[in-house]
Amino acid sequence: MKKEIPLYDIVIVGAGPVGLLLSVSLSRWGYKVRHIDNRPVPTATGRADGIQPRTLEMLKNMKLKSKILAYDPARVFEVAFWDPAPGEKIVRTGTWASCPEFLDARYPYTALLHQGLIERVLIEDLEKNGTKVQRPWTITRFETNHVNPDYPVEVDLKNLDSNVTDTVRAKYLYSGEGARSFVRDQLGIKIRHKDPISHVWGVMDGVVRTNFPDIKMKCTIHSDHGSIMVIPRENNMVRLYIQIASSTDPDFSPRKTATVEEVQTAAKRIFQPYYCDWDRVEWYSVYPIGQGIADKYTLDHRVFMGGDVCHTHSPKAGQGMNTAFHDAVNFAWKMHLVESGFANRDILSTYEVERRFIAETLLNFDNKYAALFSQRQPTASEVSDAHKHDAGETENEFVKMFKASCEFTAGFGVAYNGNIFNHGPEHPFQHPLIITGSPQLRPGRIMPPSNVTRVVDANVVHLENEIPYNGAFRLFIYAGLKQSPKKGQHQALLDLATGLTGPNSFYTRFASAHRKLDNHHDMDNPHSSFFSLCLTMAAKRPEIEISDLPALFQDYAGRVYADDRKDMRVPNAPASAHAKMGLKEGEGAVVVVRPDGHVGVAVRLVEGPGTVEALEGYFQGFTVPEGKAVTKSPSSSGLGGGSEHVKAQL
Amino acid sequence: MKKEIPLYDIVIVGAGPVGLLLSVSLSRWGYKVRHIDNRPVPTATGRADGIQPRTLEMLKNMKLKSKILAYDPARVFEVAFWDPAPGEKIVRTGTWASCPEFLDARYPYTALLHQGLIERVLIEDLEKNGTKVQRPWTITRFETNHVNPDYPVEVDLKNLDSNVTDTVRAKYLYSGEGARSFVRDQLGIKIRHKDPISHVWGVMDGVVRTNFPDIKMKCTIHSDHGSIMVIPRENNMVRLYIQIASSTDPDFSPRKTATVEEVQTAAKRIFQPYYCDWDRVEWYSVYPIGQGIADKYTLDHRVFMGGDVCHTHSPKAGQGMNTAFHDAVNFAWKMHLVESGFANRDILSTYEVERRFIAETLLNFDNKYAALFSQRQPTASEVSDAHKHDAGETENEFVKMFKASCEFTAGFGVAYNGNIFNHGPEHPFQHPLIITGSPQLRPGRIMPPSNVTRVVDANVVHLENEIPYNGAFRLFIYAGLKQSPKKGQHQALLDLATGLTGPNSFYTRFASAHRKLDNHHDMDNPHSSFFSLCLTMAAKRPEIEISDLPALFQDYAGRVYADDRKDMRVPNAPASAHAKMGLKEGEGAVVVVRPDGHVGVAVRLVEGPGTVEALEGYFQGFTVPEGKAVTKSPSSSGLGGGSEHVKAQL
Repeated sequence: MKKEIPLYDIVIVGAGPVGLLLSVSLSRWGYKVRHIDNRPVPTATGRADGIQPRTLEMLKNMKLKSKILAYDPARVFEVAFWDPAPGEKIVRTGTWASCPEFLDARYPYTALLHQGLIERVLIEDLEKNGTKVQRPWTITRFETNHVNPDYPVEVDLKNLDSNVTDTVRAKYLYSGEGARSFVRDQLGIKIRHKDPISHVWGVMDGVVRTNFPDIKMKCTIHSDHGSIMVIPRENNMVRLYIQIASSTDPDFSPRKTATVEEVQTAAKRIFQPYYCDWDRVEWYSVYPIGQGIADKYTLDHRVFMGGDVCHTHSPKAGQGMNTAFHDAVNFAWKMHLVESGFANRDILSTYEVERRFIAETLLNFDNKYAALFSQRQPTASEVSDAHKHDAGETENEFVKMFKASCEFTAGFGVAYNGNIFNHGPEHPFQHPLIITGSPQLRPGRIMPPSNVTRVVDANVVHLENEIPYNGAFRLFIYAGLKQSPKKGQHQALLDLATGLTGPNSFYTRFASAHRKLDNHHDMDNPHSSFFSLCLTMAAKRPEIEISDLPALFQDYAGRVYADDRKDMRVPNAPASAHAKMGLKEGEGAVVVVRPDGHVGVAVRLVEGPGTVEALEGYFQGFTVPEGKAVTKSPSSSGLGGGSEHVKAQL
Repeated sequence: MKKEIPLYDIVIVGAGPVGLLLSVSLSRWGYKVRHIDNRPVPTATGRADGIQPRTLEMLKNMKLKSKILAYDPARVFEVAFWDPAPGEKIVRTGTWASCPEFLDARYPYTALLHQGLIERVLIEDLEKNGTKVQRPWTITRFETNHVNPDYPVEVDLKNLDSNVTDTVRAKYLYSGEGARSFVRDQLGIKIRHKDPISHVWGVMDGVVRTNFPDIKMKCTIHSDHGSIMVIPRENNMVRLYIQIASSTDPDFSPRKTATVEEVQTAAKRIFQPYYCDWDRVEWYSVYPIGQGIADKYTLDHRVFMGGDVCHTHSPKAGQGMNTAFHDAVNFAWKMHLVESGFANRDILSTYEVERRFIAETLLNFDNKYAALFSQRQPTASEVSDAHKHDAGETENEFVKMFKASCEFTAGFGVAYNGNIFNHGPEHPFQHPLIITGSPQLRPGRIMPPSNVTRVVDANVVHLENEIPYNGAFRLFIYAGLKQSPKKGQHQALLDLATGLTGPNSFYTRFASAHRKLDNHHDMDNPHSSFFSLCLTMAAKRPEIEISDLPALFQDYAGRVYADDRKDMRVPNAPASAHAKMGLKEGEGAVVVVRPDGHVGVAVRLVEGPGTVEALEGYFQGFTVPEGKAVTKSPSSSGLGGGSEHVKAQL
């Protein structure tokens, strides 16, 4: 009797940050995930710990932020610099904001807690959605073949306890194995080292008692006895990073190590004249690290990799877990849009293009960042210049670089280049209504945050988070001020609704098969699981009657907003959410935001068919052409009402 | 063999809001609690549901707010009024903020979710601290006698499943049994009815589908077919209150009832011309309710009562659970301060005085509130006047009353009268440095919220929440601007520290026996479990060096703040937290805040011994005189390092 081979949408190898967030995403969207990890238990403590401001926003959008903050992470608002002073002392030479005011961040701090707690939140979420990480399992073989064209990846798995083996087939294989990757090795993909210098780092988490005044701040301490980086942690802990060896040392060995006591003794010497004793050590590790980047993230668009498999760098800037999270999200929505019959398969190539570009930027930054710390210390006046909201002509090279660094480390510098998703001058489709050159609405970047009042319940809300992370494209419609929003007189809005709901529009083509059924309580996807709409009117809440709006928007009653909140960043704007998007009084727009929160394209909202024409052209760039739409749902049916998508027959 | 009688600090009867929050407080502070409830399981759904802005602040201070908000309650920001219109219709005649801008609230909304979820959060918290609610147990007898003078209350308990009985002794018995109370009946305490009119209410929780536009808002709907109150709830639910009978009806019976279908039919008629259908009904109840208040909350200061045992009123204003919570907190800290040897036993009389006064205010308000809704509808212009921050001379009687109502329903109108805790002109101790007549620092009221920067880690924090709810008096020290905060030149601060740490000061007298032991990581109570200090300097964060401060404040390193944040309410103030307390530039103060967040007294901070003299006089009003201090800890030892308090020998 032939054993039936189990079929999965995806096999995910590794349950670190990248594997877990990918698993969370796909499990939420109803995919059948086989997820393994070769460690017998999840991370207990230590390892990565920094969640950057932009990552916090993304976790908020996924409704995971409050669960992570419930563990009371340390919050870093400022970084302090300490330098050698006469008499074998150290002295504070400056402090600066880790996410300065010129960055428009919801959460202008880095949250620090150990990776195990973060993993716990993600594991709970994916278990709630029916996926369980199997441990300790490893991957022993994989190949892409044509035995079953729907599930082209064949994978051999093995339980490291029982030695039981299992062969499965999947649509995709994703490696989040970390720096040492079986999958990458098997594919023969090389790691390229950007910087020939590598280092051995010691890292120690523990509770110290000290009179060093900045022990609750992130600090870089340079002393005549060596350097150390201090990072506050949850539960009164502190993390110390200490460089144990560098390949520039004459006797360098990547195997060089140091005991706990040696590191503590070194730290005591660096902290002088302050004392520093240990109550307890929670975690200690020594590891060599080089800067490396994988040549490819995939060879065949079936077997993919992300996270530390593809890029390694120093832990100094706290970017590792953040970059891994964004790798996972970037892959998740693209795979989803292909597998659910919305987008052409070739969009998968943008995963490597976008994420490898960010990894390269990260490595370049890592070099510069290291130099910034080790070569030249900023003066107090340079630091104070950098903090000004509008530094103007006083900016020197250092300040400029610092600004760019802050934006990057906070996560707001992630800017994808133009491609089929991120509209730009090289995009094959052009239209006069597409907004170009706006500093606020830059395709490839995230949109600025804004507060608005939800009409239906008068709640003050974060507009950018009103559409949750649900795999859909987001159409943020700014109605402008041209006409009274009352009594259906807003012709541009009426024309937009007419165009979107027209028989052949991109919006109608991907309407859910169930869309004529019950959508009364579904404010996110009443018509299509591929689109979520948000309508923001430049009016006061009591002036807006949802029953006067075109029928399309009445189905989104819970996603209609009044732009009537004051914003300190645009204090004189009559409609601050419009103003923050760079829309002048009277101007309306439709901002298309990708499922990961990055702007795709922004189109002016005008009377007539032009606005929808421009949107149509953009979506035709990557959606499945008419007649080719996949008519089946993802293999699991966990999606609820809107899970099956067919070409609607209208 | 004689059976040993179990001894408890307190027996709590009833696990509704008042009993649970009392149990949470005392369990956290290490008391041995016997807690019973006669229901076999906790509340499953329905019942009380409204958490008012001030209660949210209190729950935040207890670190319970985020756990409650994790259940995603509905948030009410505005109230809408609907009135009859020609043609058997209803029409919206106005809306207003439920917590208008003139109230300086951190959380300007009412959170709505069913009592069971709120109870779950409290039950988890008390179980974490070693108390378990026993069910189904009831109280069958109690008496206060002298068999064991340390545990004067003898209580018979009975398990309603097994009929097992148990006799225990306790220091206190607290009844949170609800409107029908065995304890109250046994004590022969009468309920007095303020208003002779009583009503029968129907209340229904469920999911409706309707085109009524304000179904997500709190609404009062008057129609020609009757009246209804709409309250949005968690999980897409809505609560409808409908008055079924009134004692003013000619055929009134308190036993009058109505079926689910009858109420639904009545609602459909009232909602016309909007449709209203039910997806499901989650909870339905009909209950007669009258306004009543107990004559006494205790007879002997050993057996106490609170919550619905002492006061009942209409559910309209959503005050029930909130008042119960404040009853619990008010009793908890007073019992704690007596039992831990800090305060004289006679302070327990202030529990009834303070809380019965609030209950009376609530009942008076309840009458007026009902009249406000049923007699006269506000015009749109009246409503809009009331919303202005500074309404000036356009205020009419109605607007004034509305303002007062908002303050009260939001919880900010709770103002305890002058007594031994709340300094005022009738207080036996007077001192010229005591601040009088300040609109911001009114003894008996809570202090205004403010944002400051914590020096030690540069975190922007809510100053009023920096000292958690830990049973201690809070000394908020505002250093003023008179001198540079650097280099120890602040003489007034130095004199304050010297005075507080002097050998016979109130602060030193109640120093913890363990205070010379390890206080390195205890920022809340490094010296004494009865006092927590917060020092706010009118300076920028980098200007403040904690090592330059008097030693007292160095032990509170984590409780030193820079008053360097902008506040929209005092945009031009050089130090906004100072300004929000009514302190002019250069003025300093010590604001004594009771363990429940209400201001006790505010004293000017000046050079010399005067400030500490004034504080000493205030605390001598209720602290145990020298030589009488209790030398033992609460019977359980769950308090950690600072749990035992002895008279320090200095």
